[in-house]
Amino acid sequence: MAEKKESENANNVIKAKLGEINLDKLTQKKVDLIERNLDEITDGDRLILRKIVQQRALKIYWGTAITGRPHIAYFLPILKLRDFLEAGCEVTVMFADIHGFLDNLKAPISKIESRYTYYKKLITTMLGRSLRNGTGLGGIRFIKGSDFELTPKYTFDVYRMASYTTERDCKRAGADVVKQSENALLSSMLYPNMQALDEEYLGVDAQFGGSDQRKIFMHAKTFLPKLGYKKRIHLMNPMMPGLNSEKMSSSDEMSKIDMLDTKQQISKKIGKCFCEEGNTDTGVLTIFEYILFNYFGSVKVSGVEYSTFEMLKDEFGKKVIHPGDLKSACSYYVNEMVAPVRDVMMEETEMIEAAYGKISRQ
Amino acid sequence: MAEKKESENANNVIKAKLGEINLDKLTQKKVDLIERNLDEITDGDRLILRKIVQQRALKIYWGTAITGRPHIAYFLPILKLRDFLEAGCEVTVMFADIHGFLDNLKAPISKIESRYTYYKKLITTMLGRSLRNGTGLGGIRFIKGSDFELTPKYTFDVYRMASYTTERDCKRAGADVVKQSENALLSSMLYPNMQALDEEYLGVDAQFGGSDQRKIFMHAKTFLPKLGYKKRIHLMNPMMPGLNSEKMSSSDEMSKIDMLDTKQQISKKIGKCFCEEGNTDTGVLTIFEYILFNYFGSVKVSGVEYSTFEMLKDEFGKKVIHPGDLKSACSYYVNEMVAPVRDVMMEETEMIEAAYGKISRQ
Repeated sequence: MAEKKESENANNVIKAKLGEINLDKLTQKKVDLIERNLDEITDGDRLILRKIVQQRALKIYWGTAITGRPHIAYFLPILKLRDFLEAGCEVTVMFADIHGFLDNLKAPISKIESRYTYYKKLITTMLGRSLRNGTGLGGIRFIKGSDFELTPKYTFDVYRMASYTTERDCKRAGADVVKQSENALLSSMLYPNMQALDEEYLGVDAQFGGSDQRKIFMHAKTFLPKLGYKKRIHLMNPMMPGLNSEKMSSSDEMSKIDMLDTKQQISKKIGKCFCEEGNTDTGVLTIFEYILFNYFGSVKVSGVEYSTFEMLKDEFGKKVIHPGDLKSACSYYVNEMVAPVRDVMMEETEMIEAAYGKISRQ
Repeated sequence: MAEKKESENANNVIKAKLGEINLDKLTQKKVDLIERNLDEITDGDRLILRKIVQQRALKIYWGTAITGRPHIAYFLPILKLRDFLEAGCEVTVMFADIHGFLDNLKAPISKIESRYTYYKKLITTMLGRSLRNGTGLGGIRFIKGSDFELTPKYTFDVYRMASYTTERDCKRAGADVVKQSENALLSSMLYPNMQALDEEYLGVDAQFGGSDQRKIFMHAKTFLPKLGYKKRIHLMNPMMPGLNSEKMSSSDEMSKIDMLDTKQQISKKIGKCFCEEGNTDTGVLTIFEYILFNYFGSVKVSGVEYSTFEMLKDEFGKKVIHPGDLKSACSYYVNEMVAPVRDVMMEETEMIEAAYGKISRQ
C-alpha cells in the first residue's frame, strides 16, 4: 500500500516536471513526430525524450529478428522510422540474425546469411519507398546482430546478466515475443537478455518496437542498471491484427499479405476477408486504419475521397460504402504500396529462393 | 523393452571388443595408471581409451571452477593428475573463472582475478609437491576459462547449443554440481553447456572429474555430437565425504580441512571428528582411505606400519587401535601433506586476502 502510494507520488512528480518543460517550436514538432501514432510511452520516458531532443538528435534503434518473410504489417514500424528520420533522429536498424535462431530456430542456422540478405534488401526498399519530403536514408545505420553480439565484452555481459536473471524473469520477459513452451529451449531464455544488452551496445537513447515487446522492454529497464548501464526510453507501436485472426503472422499464409504477393494474390486474400455490410469489425478496415491512411494520407473509395480513417469507418458503418467497393479500394492501395517493393525484390529470385525456397506466385 | 535389449546387445559387443584388445606391457601399464582408483568409466570409454593410448599420448582435461578456498579433498583429483602425468598423458588444468560466477556467483565478478591467482598458485603447488619418480610439470598446460570462452566462435556455439538444449536438460545436467533452486538463475543453466563445449575447445580426448560431474558428462556426450563435435571419454573419481557431513564443502568450515589451516587447526578439526572405538564409520578413516594411503603409500599408527587401508580399518574395527591414536596419526600425516603447500602459500598473504579477505589462524 505504502509502495503504491510512493510510486503514485513519483508519477505525479514526473507529470509536474513534464508540464514545466517549454519546448521551442522546432523541438515541439520533432517531439510530436516521434511520439505520434504510438501505442504507449511512459511519462518518465517522455520527460527524458524531451530533454534529449532539446539538445541533440535522439538515437533510436529498431531491431527485427530474422525469421519468416516480412508482410505488410512491417509498414507499421517502417512508417514510424520515417517519422523518426523526419524528426532528425539517428536511426539504427538492427537485423537480429542471432535472435532469429534463438527463437526456436525460426531462422535455421544454415539460412541465417541468406535470410539476412533478404531482410536487408526488403527493409531498405520498403523504407526507401516510404520516405517523403526529401528525407533520405542518410540518417540511418544498418547493423547485423552478429556484428557485435559475439565480441568478448558483449559475451561477458551475457554471462553477467545471466547471473542476475532467473529462468522466470527471462520466460516472463519473452512471453509475448518468443515461442513459449513448458520446457523451453535455453536459447529462448537468452533472447530477452540479449535484446536488453543490445540497447547498451548500440549506444542508443531509445528502443522502438511493437507493444508485444513491452515485457522485454521492462526487463531491460530493470536489469541494465544492475549491470551499471543506464535504462533506455521505450517507444511502443500498436500491433496490427491479422486479416482474419488475432495477429498478422508470417507462419499463417492467409492471415498476412506478403511483400512478394502478386496483384492477384493481394486481391484474392482481401477478397476472402470477412467483411459484412455495415459491420466495422473487419480486417479490411484494419488495413486502412493501421497502414493505408498513414502511407497515402487520404484514400478514395468509389470516387469519394476520405482524409481520415474515422470518416471512412463511419460511412462504412452507415452502409454508405458497400463491402465490395471497400475491398477493391483496399486491394488497389495495398498493391500500389507493395508493387514498387515487389518489383525490386523479384529481380533477385535466386536470393529469395536461397532464403525461403521457391515461392508461390498464384 | 526392445530398446533395453538393443542397448544390452551394444554393451555386449563393446565388452567383446574390449576383450579382443591385446596391449603391450608399456601400454597396459599406462592404461592401469590412468584407470586406477576411479569410481567409474564406461566400457565404451575404456575401449576408446585403449585405442588412443596404443597410438599416442592421451589428452585429458580437469577443470576446477574458481569458488571457495580449496580443501584437502582437492588432493583426490591432484593424485589422479599425478597418475595421468606418470602415464605420459597431455594434461590440461583449466581454471574455470567464468564458471565460478555462473554458479550462483560463488566467485563474485570483482574477485575473479584474485581468486584465479590464488587457485593457480595453490593447485600448481599441490600438484608440484605430489609428483614422484622424476615426473615434472612439463607435461601439463594451465589455462583459464576466459582465455577461450569469450571468443566469437565459442560464443556462437553457446547459442547453437542453447538452441538444442531445454531448461530441463540444463537443470538436470547441473543438478549435482550447480546450486539448485526452483527458480534458477539463467547462469546456472548455461554452466553445463559451457562445460561440454570446453571439451571441444580444449581439444582433448577425455574429461576427468568427480563422480558428481556424471550428469554434466552425460549431457556433453549427448549434445556435442548434435553440434557436429565428437563425444569424449569421461573419467570419474570417487567423491570424498566431509569430516562430519555428506560432502566436504568449502562453505562449511568444520566439514573441511583448508590448505591454509595451521597444524593446531588441523589437530582441532580432526580431534572433533566423531570417532568411536571400533566403529569404522568415521571421517578420520575416510581421510586415510581417500587421501593418505594414496599420498604416502603406507602409514604408521602407534608405531605399527600399515601398507593398505583395509589393514588399518580392520584393526580399528577390532579395537586394536584406539580412536585417540588414530586421530593423532591422521593429524600428523595431514599436516605433513599440507605443510609444504601452506608454507608456500603463506608467503603471499596479500594475494590470499585479495581473494578471500583476512583468514583465521586459530
